[in-house]
Amino acid sequence: MSMSLDGFIAGPNDGPGNGLGDHGHRLHEWFADPAKADPVNRAVLAEAMTTGAVVVGRRTFDLAEQWGGDHHDGVPIVLLTRRTADEPAWDNVTYVDDVRAAMRTAKDAAGDKDVLVHGAVTAQLALAAGVLDEVQLHVVPVLLGQGRRLFDATSREHVELELLRARQGTDVLHLRYRVRSAAR
Amino acid sequence: MSMSLDGFIAGPNDGPGNGLGDHGHRLHEWFADPAKADPVNRAVLAEAMTTGAVVVGRRTFDLAEQWGGDHHDGVPIVLLTRRTADEPAWDNVTYVDDVRAAMRTAKDAAGDKDVLVHGAVTAQLALAAGVLDEVQLHVVPVLLGQGRRLFDATSREHVELELLRARQGTDVLHLRYRVRSAAR
Repeated sequence: MSMSLDGFIAGPNDGPGNGLGDHGHRLHEWFADPAKADPVNRAVLAEAMTTGAVVVGRRTFDLAEQWGGDHHDGVPIVLLTRRTADEPAWDNVTYVDDVRAAMRTAKDAAGDKDVLVHGAVTAQLALAAGVLDEVQLHVVPVLLGQGRRLFDATSREHVELELLRARQGTDVLHLRYRVRSAAR
Repeated sequence: MSMSLDGFIAGPNDGPGNGLGDHGHRLHEWFADPAKADPVNRAVLAEAMTTGAVVVGRRTFDLAEQWGGDHHDGVPIVLLTRRTADEPAWDNVTYVDDVRAAMRTAKDAAGDKDVLVHGAVTAQLALAAGVLDEVQLHVVPVLLGQGRRLFDATSREHVELELLRARQGTDVLHLRYRVRSAAR
């Protein structure tokens, strides 16, 4: 997830047609702006695109216009939603209503590849359930001051992490953490 | 300021006798725990101790038990407070009621040295007033889930930063940013 230094993953007023919120595009420039596509940023982006499955929440999925049914390379997409009776619009999309089941489904589908988790709520649910192995943040040097937080203090858990890697790209700092414990 | 990855500088229930809040000591281990005093952490701490003046808010000052009147080396301390009529308990402490005046007083007192700014509210006021030159964060690999945020979304300003330095110490990532613009 791309995050401002003050913890926002989207600007204020996010919604249909404004998926990243006001000024939220600022957080995605490191991969969306060709002028910032240095070797580090390209490598980190390429790495994300080698994942074998995607888990995503309904809200993020819809704001991203469902990625036209394909996040990358047609990999399976597991949608965390309460409305599992609905018919998915795409063949590679599965609806699951429990975060543990969603992660298990995605991990099985990904085989020996990693699973990409999208959306703040989904990430927090996975973390709280103890089924998130790593947290990868792309910290953009900006303070948005308002918007949607990645960590909105709903979980209230103390989670220990371990920094596995810090890489500096143009206009972004890529941090990769391993989840060591959920609560202590 | 030492901050958890989810943006907290103190745990919940901070107050007299519990200045860092519940579990907040976790954020200070990188300099308080001798086992974590590696060369990087020692150098970064030593750097903070070469500052020529301190600006601090009333709340932080009191929670820190006024540092016994001496933050380090007896440097001047400028206290941002509305109660300027009160008599400071220490000779090197000055009371100022405006953040611009407080920063100017401290910068004058520091000469060619840097000024250390303490406290989330004071830092945000200085940032909003355009008188903060740098933001230095010591990011601890932990999610506290609750507590006192450094960036609590009261300012609502869009501030561009530039990463000057990222250094990895034992159990902490030291980030130093230059403030490029207050709003755009």
